[in-house]
Amino acid sequence: MNNLAKICLATAATVVALGVSAQQNLSWDKAQLASPVVNSNRTVTFHVKAPEARKIQLVGDLVQGTAELKKDTAGIWSFTTPELKPELYTYNIILDGTKVLDPLNVYTVRDISSLFNMVLVPGEQADLYRVANVPHGTVSKIWYNSPTSGLNRRLTVYTPAGYETGKQKYPVLYLLHGIGGDENAWSELGRAVQILDNLIAAGKAKPMIVVMTNGNISQEAAPGETSNGFVAPTMLLPKTMEGSFETAFPDVVRFIERTYRVKADKANRAIAGLSMGGFHSLYISINHPDTFDYVGLFSAAVDKKQGVSDIYDNRDGKVEQLFAKNPKLFWIGIGKDDFLYNANKDFRGYLDAHHHAYTYYESDGGHIWRNWRVYLSKFLPLLFK
Amino acid sequence: MNNLAKICLATAATVVALGVSAQQNLSWDKAQLASPVVNSNRTVTFHVKAPEARKIQLVGDLVQGTAELKKDTAGIWSFTTPELKPELYTYNIILDGTKVLDPLNVYTVRDISSLFNMVLVPGEQADLYRVANVPHGTVSKIWYNSPTSGLNRRLTVYTPAGYETGKQKYPVLYLLHGIGGDENAWSELGRAVQILDNLIAAGKAKPMIVVMTNGNISQEAAPGETSNGFVAPTMLLPKTMEGSFETAFPDVVRFIERTYRVKADKANRAIAGLSMGGFHSLYISINHPDTFDYVGLFSAAVDKKQGVSDIYDNRDGKVEQLFAKNPKLFWIGIGKDDFLYNANKDFRGYLDAHHHAYTYYESDGGHIWRNWRVYLSKFLPLLFK
Repeated sequence: MNNLAKICLATAATVVALGVSAQQNLSWDKAQLASPVVNSNRTVTFHVKAPEARKIQLVGDLVQGTAELKKDTAGIWSFTTPELKPELYTYNIILDGTKVLDPLNVYTVRDISSLFNMVLVPGEQADLYRVANVPHGTVSKIWYNSPTSGLNRRLTVYTPAGYETGKQKYPVLYLLHGIGGDENAWSELGRAVQILDNLIAAGKAKPMIVVMTNGNISQEAAPGETSNGFVAPTMLLPKTMEGSFETAFPDVVRFIERTYRVKADKANRAIAGLSMGGFHSLYISINHPDTFDYVGLFSAAVDKKQGVSDIYDNRDGKVEQLFAKNPKLFWIGIGKDDFLYNANKDFRGYLDAHHHAYTYYESDGGHIWRNWRVYLSKFLPLLFK
Repeated sequence: MNNLAKICLATAATVVALGVSAQQNLSWDKAQLASPVVNSNRTVTFHVKAPEARKIQLVGDLVQGTAELKKDTAGIWSFTTPELKPELYTYNIILDGTKVLDPLNVYTVRDISSLFNMVLVPGEQADLYRVANVPHGTVSKIWYNSPTSGLNRRLTVYTPAGYETGKQKYPVLYLLHGIGGDENAWSELGRAVQILDNLIAAGKAKPMIVVMTNGNISQEAAPGETSNGFVAPTMLLPKTMEGSFETAFPDVVRFIERTYRVKADKANRAIAGLSMGGFHSLYISINHPDTFDYVGLFSAAVDKKQGVSDIYDNRDGKVEQLFAKNPKLFWIGIGKDDFLYNANKDFRGYLDAHHHAYTYYESDGGHIWRNWRVYLSKFLPLLFK
């Protein structure tokens, strides 16, 4: 055996020496175990090799409550779901009472302080979440200086396919996350990159730059990406909804407009966000009524908030100013079961009473990423017409 | 309680409804459990809450063999390491016989088909792997067209801090991974972004662009990032070491040089790689003796390989051509225990016999990322002088 062949084997041996069951996970064995397996009938089968375990369960948004895996004589535990709707699902395994990840699935996503495995059942809406064989935009993690906050802060920026080699200028969507999220949330949990690539490739959305901010103004970047080290993520960060993020937001717009080839006018700027990010989007847009022609509120907090910051004072007066400037789109999406449903209903009542035009999308379900991916995919085709 | 306060609670409630032990992982509880905890004496303590488990062990490069966690009366299992050298360590938990991730540590890294948890013990060399409070470069996932391979393919590109807002041109390092890796390997397992940020900020390396390719020419991008979907990663990909990657490599250079502000001459190009990537770097550089002034071979396969591809034929003659052009740096790094040690020794013997100058760095240990991070940090300061 020559050295080139040895690389393969020795790399595997190194992994084994480090304590990894390389034999199980690497593809030496044609009959190796895989999990999950998405079957052609849209059921999904899970496998865990755990001869010594006494009980294995599965939890996630593809089962009701908890599903029990069954063990065979070889110590392989299995479970197959009923037929599922096309969707990007997340799940965990409970191994003898402790929640862990599926040992055979390397695809994970973090939501605040928890990791989940992902599995995608293709078809319909879920096809927007797949990486397809279409031109791909670039995703950059880029730092900007925010004089207002006194920090260097990180952004996720999507530039559409062709940006680097072309000369044209693009419109910009600022896309904001909810509490507990960060500048990674929309690209990871939200599948925003795939949704954008796919809608743009299909001609259903205009090519655009999308700027995904970190709405936690006390934080430079996502957990693990700052000099704080690998700290445990938390949703209880200071200064999330007291005006500081909104006050510092023009720093982001200035940075983007001097760094990227953008069309820097109201007709080519959009802002949207989910939950806290919808709250941020509402107050940023109404405080700058000449800046954004497109506003999206996804399961947004839309409350009045007096006495905390100038940003929040006089909500209704500022809403009047915004609509006096005839924004091209004011979009509201919410789920029937969302705890913010009534607040949004009240806000729509206000808009109706004042004859302000808005687009409304009501979904099933509550305050969940499944809905926010749908709202994004409904919102994007309406931008920059 | 108003709606704004409810966002926090309802988000947590949503997570709970999805089956996540949010109470455990979110920071509601000041006395919450954390794992790992890096102690001030450079020991590391691990905790797993698992009242029903019968046996919990830890494996990884911070213990010899397997460490046993001990259970207390509350069902919390613990283990503290001896004092450790500063290093970025990886580990897994074995819960009743099944290897899983530490349920309390969201920081993971994938090596081929396995996920590991990460923990960093700071100090000395390991401080290069930390995100520090220094100016940060941009990391982009960008697609290029490769006419030679007939594919659109993904790159990871590091541009140094200030690139976007400046006008200067930069030198370029092409940095190649080993078998089983992909365009994510150097930035994730290799901590290349942190090493670059920190060395550049300290004035120890020149600001440069670093292009991290995908050396699996049959693959468009890393697993999960192509239209193949969330397939299980494998190191057994076709066309990794039969000349196709090297033949198509000029497509990468052309794309980079027309897309980024680079100094496009030999004195401002470097190429380096680990293992298979070192093999690629050797053969790309000797087939293009006027292209790269800096070559780095990290635990590289340096064998002759006849009759497979023109790329590999006549190695020694091509090495002569390269050295006839007086490259500024030919750098070889290898570990004493590496299975490629003797092949590298033979190759150095050839270079010595022919009076070709090279820089040699010999480390302890074998064919592992710990060494490749060190080699990168030794190599970068020598570039573009």
